[in-house]
Amino acid sequence: MAENQGLTPRAQDFSAWYNEAVMRAELADYSPVRGCMVIRPNGYAIWELVQRALDDMFKATGHRNAYFPLFIPQSFLAKEAEHVEGFAPEVAVVTHAGGKALDEPLVVRPTSETIIYDSFAKWIHSYRDLPLLVNQWANIVRWEMRTRLFLRTTEFLWQEGHTAHVDEADAERETLRMLGVYRRFAEEWMAMPVITGVKTSTEKFAGALRTYAIEALMQDNKSLQAGTSHNLGQNFAKAFGVQFQTAEGGLDYVWNTSWGVSTRLIGGLVMTHGDDVGIVCPPRLAPTQVVIVPIWKSDTERSATMQVSEGVVKELREAGFRAELDGREGMKPGAKYYEWEGRGVPLRLEIGPRDVAKGQVFAARRTGGAKAPIPLAGLAAGVGAALDGIQKDLFTAARERRDASTRRGVTKADLVAMMAGPGGFAYGGFCGDVACETAIKEATKATVRVLPDEEFRSPTPPATCAWCGRPSVAEAVWAKAY
Amino acid sequence: MAENQGLTPRAQDFSAWYNEAVMRAELADYSPVRGCMVIRPNGYAIWELVQRALDDMFKATGHRNAYFPLFIPQSFLAKEAEHVEGFAPEVAVVTHAGGKALDEPLVVRPTSETIIYDSFAKWIHSYRDLPLLVNQWANIVRWEMRTRLFLRTTEFLWQEGHTAHVDEADAERETLRMLGVYRRFAEEWMAMPVITGVKTSTEKFAGALRTYAIEALMQDNKSLQAGTSHNLGQNFAKAFGVQFQTAEGGLDYVWNTSWGVSTRLIGGLVMTHGDDVGIVCPPRLAPTQVVIVPIWKSDTERSATMQVSEGVVKELREAGFRAELDGREGMKPGAKYYEWEGRGVPLRLEIGPRDVAKGQVFAARRTGGAKAPIPLAGLAAGVGAALDGIQKDLFTAARERRDASTRRGVTKADLVAMMAGPGGFAYGGFCGDVACETAIKEATKATVRVLPDEEFRSPTPPATCAWCGRPSVAEAVWAKAY
Repeated sequence: MAENQGLTPRAQDFSAWYNEAVMRAELADYSPVRGCMVIRPNGYAIWELVQRALDDMFKATGHRNAYFPLFIPQSFLAKEAEHVEGFAPEVAVVTHAGGKALDEPLVVRPTSETIIYDSFAKWIHSYRDLPLLVNQWANIVRWEMRTRLFLRTTEFLWQEGHTAHVDEADAERETLRMLGVYRRFAEEWMAMPVITGVKTSTEKFAGALRTYAIEALMQDNKSLQAGTSHNLGQNFAKAFGVQFQTAEGGLDYVWNTSWGVSTRLIGGLVMTHGDDVGIVCPPRLAPTQVVIVPIWKSDTERSATMQVSEGVVKELREAGFRAELDGREGMKPGAKYYEWEGRGVPLRLEIGPRDVAKGQVFAARRTGGAKAPIPLAGLAAGVGAALDGIQKDLFTAARERRDASTRRGVTKADLVAMMAGPGGFAYGGFCGDVACETAIKEATKATVRVLPDEEFRSPTPPATCAWCGRPSVAEAVWAKAY
Repeated sequence: MAENQGLTPRAQDFSAWYNEAVMRAELADYSPVRGCMVIRPNGYAIWELVQRALDDMFKATGHRNAYFPLFIPQSFLAKEAEHVEGFAPEVAVVTHAGGKALDEPLVVRPTSETIIYDSFAKWIHSYRDLPLLVNQWANIVRWEMRTRLFLRTTEFLWQEGHTAHVDEADAERETLRMLGVYRRFAEEWMAMPVITGVKTSTEKFAGALRTYAIEALMQDNKSLQAGTSHNLGQNFAKAFGVQFQTAEGGLDYVWNTSWGVSTRLIGGLVMTHGDDVGIVCPPRLAPTQVVIVPIWKSDTERSATMQVSEGVVKELREAGFRAELDGREGMKPGAKYYEWEGRGVPLRLEIGPRDVAKGQVFAARRTGGAKAPIPLAGLAAGVGAALDGIQKDLFTAARERRDASTRRGVTKADLVAMMAGPGGFAYGGFCGDVACETAIKEATKATVRVLPDEEFRSPTPPATCAWCGRPSVAEAVWAKAY
């Protein structure tokens, strides 16, 4: 892709468009290590905003950060039978260190339940030590066969919450509380609508009792699992001997939860809001929320528009906005617009000689619509309103797109036609039989994304399984997925 | 160590004291992986404050964060001859992944020059792309033989800055600018005085042209290298082909710098300020700056002191202080004091019935001295002044201790006696000969910590080498080191 050439249109090849949009915005780059990516400053700046927002939410719900080792003794993984079966095939293994072969190979963490609960066993003695609410920001390695920038990479960055509780009810409350945090973050910060629900046993986390997820529909009508929250039951507690003295003086195993979101969210942001020009950042996660572009033809005009522009960027920064002034010389305004649009900056303020005379700036929204003046007298309020409007519009547009790609009460024929055609969320009855789930996956490539929470279920519950016609035990949402 | 038993006194066994102080404060824990540690929430909270302060300083000096792969192809390390010689013996190597042997083993990053400059080669084309100023927060693995919590661990957390410049002068300015940032952080945030200077060729970073460092004297009179800043010259640029078109239209290799500090700083904080009761956090890096302990004997007293205490903690938090209220029942005030002292909380406010009546709190400084009342009417100002005072006192005390353990113009006999005895910083003339450096190390276990910057040099420069008597080419500071 040459520097000033348009992107492949989404409608033509969504996957090519995605890669080009990520590259044009300089969010990430390929690396010489298979499946690993470099997160470039523009991409990492989004991740820092994601981290800050989520970290605040985790702390507000009583969690504290900690850090556990990157390496896990191979024998630890094996202590929980389902867990090792799920993760062993995709781990990277350190066999040599310090110039010698290791006695026991070390696995590079594919997730940290085992190494963390080994510590929990040392720290937890009594019910007074519970709940224990810990989170970790870390890098993770899973040897994936097919990788995509942000969406699926051999190494990725994430947070993993790990908690211990006195009983199942408290663990379940925590699992759902953090699912709620993820949903709120997705909706309020990413402007990305999600549906929530529980995974089927084939799709749950290896070692969990139950896995809940937030799922978002991308513009190509494939679903992105954007965050998961697991009630781990006592599975890991039993494997690692995490016991506590109960209030009644007995001895019991704790109940654990774990939950995580990753740099994959940035891929979700791109695929939810991007257009054929490039990425679009929702204002609350935009490293640059406002770019100011002065427009001049003569030196006199330059000096006048630059002076006003400098005042504008200063005022906006003082008001708490992330604002940049693009005063580069020898570059036409149009070329600047194109560059900042490709980076997804939600709001551009153009300041020409006529605007200086009128005491205003001209505001162009990345999301389109007519340009509109904002008077300098009410600058911060005007910019704030515009950004709030963009944040809201992005969410509304994404929800409308999702709803338009959602069908309810699907039959077998619907499911086949939908997945062979436009894709989307297909709601239908499900008999609960793994055989049906497998048959659907083989025939349509769609999987059960979730058995949706009540809020998302259809008003009339389906009576029969969309595939086999036997009685339905739960409504399911099928989609092809990333 | 039982829970309520005193620590081993520093004077008796500093090393045992250190481990006990870290454990009592619950900063870190040992892990099942050799040489790796678990950073517990109390320790990680300090690290988060360190990160926030440094990150703000990096951004204020124009740097942006990015993230590069954990794994480095083994062949990359070998591209810079000195570099591979320095790091190859201590790397951990991934030989298998995804169930198969890898074609080329991957090294877990012991530092990231090679993988980062490989990307720089793709990103840098012209002098207009320079300087490129990047920083990364990451985990690092070096297979160390003897490990100590925070001070030397197989895996540690750090930041590594990596920059590229048009010429040597600009790279040197950057190298010294970041050394200055580290010094300011050490002094103003950690209350840890440092000396700055350049390393000798035997002590410099493997692959650097010149290495600068900040060095701090711990309470056991051993030096801690607390941060390093390297002018890498064109060594890595040549190895990785990082070339740019100059303003004059020619082609040249960039000049790189790299600089880093790590979780080792937390060990430095403990060993600079701790006392026989436990750690002492300088207020600016204290996760809890103020703890409020209400004191009661009856229910009436409890209700009165708790009410005032709740108001106090609320007011202090609103004023921006990190304050905690310890209202636990069934626990004597003395036991609470002991616990918070062990965690290093700099200021404790006691609130008893008499204080309620007088409209005051009683303030006890972790650093000692008489307790003093602070009137509720001027609470935030009084607490602010007390914390500022503690921050200042810690720095002054540490500097006085260092100065008292510093000797200038040392002779060979002085050096031997000092290093066999009390330790400390020994300033003396140095002939510059590696043979002398080696002989001193073998005889005294002391190394040249730095050739100090002008500000730290002795008023009269030494004329002869402290060891061999030949002419001195530079003043050196010797010490035993961590």
